[in-house]
Amino acid sequence: MSGREKGHVSIIGLGPGAEGAVTPDAQAALSAAQDIIGYGPYVARVPLRPDQERHASDNRVEIERARHALDLAAAGRRVAVVSSGDPGVFAMAAAIFEALEADPARWEGVAITVIPGITAMLAAAARLGAPLGHDFCAINLSDNLKPWELVEKRLRHAARGDFAMAFYNPSSRSRPWQFARTLEILREECGPDTIIVFARNVTRDDERFAITTLGQARPEQADMRSVVIVGSSLTRLIERGADRPIVYTPRWAGMPPEGAA
Amino acid sequence: MSGREKGHVSIIGLGPGAEGAVTPDAQAALSAAQDIIGYGPYVARVPLRPDQERHASDNRVEIERARHALDLAAAGRRVAVVSSGDPGVFAMAAAIFEALEADPARWEGVAITVIPGITAMLAAAARLGAPLGHDFCAINLSDNLKPWELVEKRLRHAARGDFAMAFYNPSSRSRPWQFARTLEILREECGPDTIIVFARNVTRDDERFAITTLGQARPEQADMRSVVIVGSSLTRLIERGADRPIVYTPRWAGMPPEGAA
Repeated sequence: MSGREKGHVSIIGLGPGAEGAVTPDAQAALSAAQDIIGYGPYVARVPLRPDQERHASDNRVEIERARHALDLAAAGRRVAVVSSGDPGVFAMAAAIFEALEADPARWEGVAITVIPGITAMLAAAARLGAPLGHDFCAINLSDNLKPWELVEKRLRHAARGDFAMAFYNPSSRSRPWQFARTLEILREECGPDTIIVFARNVTRDDERFAITTLGQARPEQADMRSVVIVGSSLTRLIERGADRPIVYTPRWAGMPPEGAA
Repeated sequence: MSGREKGHVSIIGLGPGAEGAVTPDAQAALSAAQDIIGYGPYVARVPLRPDQERHASDNRVEIERARHALDLAAAGRRVAVVSSGDPGVFAMAAAIFEALEADPARWEGVAITVIPGITAMLAAAARLGAPLGHDFCAINLSDNLKPWELVEKRLRHAARGDFAMAFYNPSSRSRPWQFARTLEILREECGPDTIIVFARNVTRDDERFAITTLGQARPEQADMRSVVIVGSSLTRLIERGADRPIVYTPRWAGMPPEGAA
């Protein structure tokens, strides 16, 4: 069978939630699709035309969803796989490529495109100021697919490198103690005065931020709808009267340039 | 003077270059602005209406540019400060807040909004596959505003934590040896077989990728228009016939889930 008979898979980032953060490229890829595949709540964000088909699934079945998308495309369909945020950051793109790598002959000739989106940590950072304005790490705190020891090792290296950090999937019912342990490690490595922000449902109507310190933070402040940002030793607040303080990390370290704080 | 008489500053991310990656929020903020401020080539990307004024500047004067934007807003103007990519990632947002923190009374009541954009590393990652599909660090390799020793320390911690890494500002004429030293450190810490990608002018007409290994990489492959991505120990290639291979980092570590490579 020739590759020209095959369809394609677009792996699309819908951004954090607000329509104003969905790129024209993402809109165009959605509009070109015959099948829309993804985790239920993400698929529900896409308005459907009568000629489009929706395939919603549970959030624990990424590999099955990936194979389904690739099979539809191999049969000639134009398939959109949707992720919240950016599909390349702890989302569906890696799952699609895992499936592909396990059985490349099955999906030979299927074209695959990734359309980036505004990822949660950068949406949260923008609403706060610029907490990731200098070197930073992004860490998925879930130990569903990796040993917890690796998470701890990465936390310690991120802290010792004085990186700002953004955490995805900080907490869930199936992982009851891990975020408390994360806070313990960070307190030990960074000290109690380091700034931490809990950002929930960023850019949605019920968006909420809690700005505090590692010493004050409580594990129950994070859930599956949160992204958590921990500052470097230089991350600071600018108070702005009745408004939420600005949280930012300067571009410099060592000595501020002339005119900067 | 009441805060209500003041204007505002929108710090806007224009994405990596292609129009299809500029969000509707960014377009709306540009369209609401009276003054467009930024580094010359970024300001040049914005089509101007007759009622809008352009203020282009050199890329070495971020703090002056930040103060200029805040002053215009304090005088009642609606000001857009434009950055390539995301303004919160090694771009203008932190510079604005540095200026503000140094002299908060001067700009009291000026509203400041950050509009996120698709940052270069995530645009490059999407074109390649999903090299940042698991835990990763973003590091600005410029030592203009921080001691080189801090860069080395962060490189070593990122490597020892087995993070994938994205480097901004890898090389420039004023920093002739730093990227060669970066490659040396990474070879030492990660070994010669680790994947490295040089991505230049991502999403533009002259976009170019070079996929190689730390052992084969040469310092002159990076310049100021490049973002460089270095894989973790698990980052791998999927060959796709005549097409560019896919570069991706799986979501798992230790043991692949069923159905994944």
